[in-house]
Amino acid sequence: MSLISDDLDNRKDTKPSALHQLSATPETVHWGYFDPALAPVLKVKSGDIIHAEAVTHHAGDAPDLMMDDAIWKIFREIPEADRNPGVHIMTGPIWIEGAQPGDMLEVRYLSMVPRFRYGSNLAANWGHLYKDFDEKERVTIYRMDANGNHAQAHYAYDFKGKYLTPGTVTHCPECDRQQTLNGIRIPVRPHLGTAGVAPDIHGRVSTIPPGLHGGNIDNWRIGAGATMYYPVAVDGALFSIGDPHISQGDGEISGTAIEASLDVVFQVILRKDFHFPSPLLETADSWIVHGFDEDLNKAMRNASLDMLRLLNEHHGLSRNDSYSLMSVAADFGVTQVVDTRQGVHARISRSLFPAAEERLAAQKKKQDGEA
Amino acid sequence: MSLISDDLDNRKDTKPSALHQLSATPETVHWGYFDPALAPVLKVKSGDIIHAEAVTHHAGDAPDLMMDDAIWKIFREIPEADRNPGVHIMTGPIWIEGAQPGDMLEVRYLSMVPRFRYGSNLAANWGHLYKDFDEKERVTIYRMDANGNHAQAHYAYDFKGKYLTPGTVTHCPECDRQQTLNGIRIPVRPHLGTAGVAPDIHGRVSTIPPGLHGGNIDNWRIGAGATMYYPVAVDGALFSIGDPHISQGDGEISGTAIEASLDVVFQVILRKDFHFPSPLLETADSWIVHGFDEDLNKAMRNASLDMLRLLNEHHGLSRNDSYSLMSVAADFGVTQVVDTRQGVHARISRSLFPAAEERLAAQKKKQDGEA
Repeated sequence: MSLISDDLDNRKDTKPSALHQLSATPETVHWGYFDPALAPVLKVKSGDIIHAEAVTHHAGDAPDLMMDDAIWKIFREIPEADRNPGVHIMTGPIWIEGAQPGDMLEVRYLSMVPRFRYGSNLAANWGHLYKDFDEKERVTIYRMDANGNHAQAHYAYDFKGKYLTPGTVTHCPECDRQQTLNGIRIPVRPHLGTAGVAPDIHGRVSTIPPGLHGGNIDNWRIGAGATMYYPVAVDGALFSIGDPHISQGDGEISGTAIEASLDVVFQVILRKDFHFPSPLLETADSWIVHGFDEDLNKAMRNASLDMLRLLNEHHGLSRNDSYSLMSVAADFGVTQVVDTRQGVHARISRSLFPAAEERLAAQKKKQDGEA
Repeated sequence: MSLISDDLDNRKDTKPSALHQLSATPETVHWGYFDPALAPVLKVKSGDIIHAEAVTHHAGDAPDLMMDDAIWKIFREIPEADRNPGVHIMTGPIWIEGAQPGDMLEVRYLSMVPRFRYGSNLAANWGHLYKDFDEKERVTIYRMDANGNHAQAHYAYDFKGKYLTPGTVTHCPECDRQQTLNGIRIPVRPHLGTAGVAPDIHGRVSTIPPGLHGGNIDNWRIGAGATMYYPVAVDGALFSIGDPHISQGDGEISGTAIEASLDVVFQVILRKDFHFPSPLLETADSWIVHGFDEDLNKAMRNASLDMLRLLNEHHGLSRNDSYSLMSVAADFGVTQVVDTRQGVHARISRSLFPAAEERLAAQKKKQDGEA
């Protein structure tokens, strides 16, 4: 059994060693897929910090507000035929020196800064209530206040076509632009909808369904201050980021968040001292595991098994204790129901756990008592 | 369209008028069922406050710690054959004068005080991971600190029988009592697992599956300071409470919470000015709707439709606006997966909504601009 991170004395490998810049260009992004055969666009060492651009594939909903020349260039130069089988513009992949299958890639998200003050929510044809809205698609453009604390709806319009091609430019200046959601201010919580390592699968893997490699998890808690642990599947890990959001609810019910490009700073740390089978999230106050399946019932079961594993293998509780604790103190949520493979996450408070040394002292005391 | 509660000027009917005491006795509880034919044990007026005892049916897990003479009397005098088809000891029903089908019963939970310092978590045969634990049932007894802030495991033991009869006394002083969950302190959040009005169905309705009448919702947010709105189905509403908990996680994964008797103070207010089809929860910071179904996928859909309805009909947003707002700011969670009919709840922050007068002013301004 190895603990993930509550022993600070063992965290020697975390001093930032180098800073890399990674702009999103037609040469540094891949659109719609992960692929272990893809050549890395950047090679880094464990401990390095990367400042990378994540570009939303929904920038076409309001090009005047959500695009600049560099983003136009991506939309112009990557042919539609090369955007498949998924939809997200992924920056990367990044090769992490020494990473091997079985390792964990720890990614500390340090900051996420919106590139523009605008984002788009699409009520999409893959949305949860699409049929209840007479199969209509609709764009709502949101605008952030200057300090990025809140977003308010800017205008909205019905999209006359159907969003089928990744990067569709739904932009429609002549459409009836409606004032909408008057007076409602939505807290901004920038995060990455999609990020992960290359799966060990021959050929392209769609970015749409999330999986053990990470990918399109769509958990809004994957923002600045959060740390993700991804199970490495191929040499070099081949980590990519994309699908930036500035706000999303658990469920992502209309099919999208407020989609908006972000500049992201993160540190990568190679971990060979523990393993976890699915993408694991650590925030300032919580540990969170993720279960996935086409069937929400099965996603729930997967999340519960991984929470059991987290408590048992990494927090040193017996299986019996883990199960009782889960029932009385872990909260299960619906991450998303719109990415083909649905998601359930399970959260447990970090503050529940005594420090490792206290726990070991308590165990020792108990053993001494028994001896 | 009518708003539920953001117009304080219309809340004239809320001054407490009388205070009633309702002890739990063999004469004032019904065990395992709702039934519209049940005679009320108390008649109250809208605005009245009731101080009622809610007794856990799991008191038999540690009778020395969780029972007194009054609770023993209930266990002794209500025959096992009369505890069905569900499991919960329900105090009531309470007749609310003037309540008619189509009304809403607003219940403001004012305080919930544990009766003892102990509670029980059963890893039950209906738990989510029962088969993964070799079909073993296990009792963990928890003890609260003196001020009721935290609970810690007191001891645990494997139950040799099978919990099939409601009110089974699993108590086993000679069993191997294990020290467990050393050093882990669980925040106490007292709440009612089960509470609701009588459904309009002939005969007994099990307390196990939650439904439109409320019942076994098992949302730990239904605690002191929260307000529930239940759709009245029969004359007098016939409201009952039971299944008290001191802590539970969303999911209630082992089949139970920390089950512990509570003394509950609540005010009932009859609302004839609005309707909602399912049990609705208002907390200090949130509006929460509940969806139910044997299939978690369908519970999710039901919750999403009711959130759409809440935003559309009660917060005055268009359906289009409601859908976009839900996607970017509502959080869906798994309430429980162990009550036959599973639950999904959806939460939206009250702070998102501008005051009614501000909204009306904004609408008027806009209309004036268009005119």
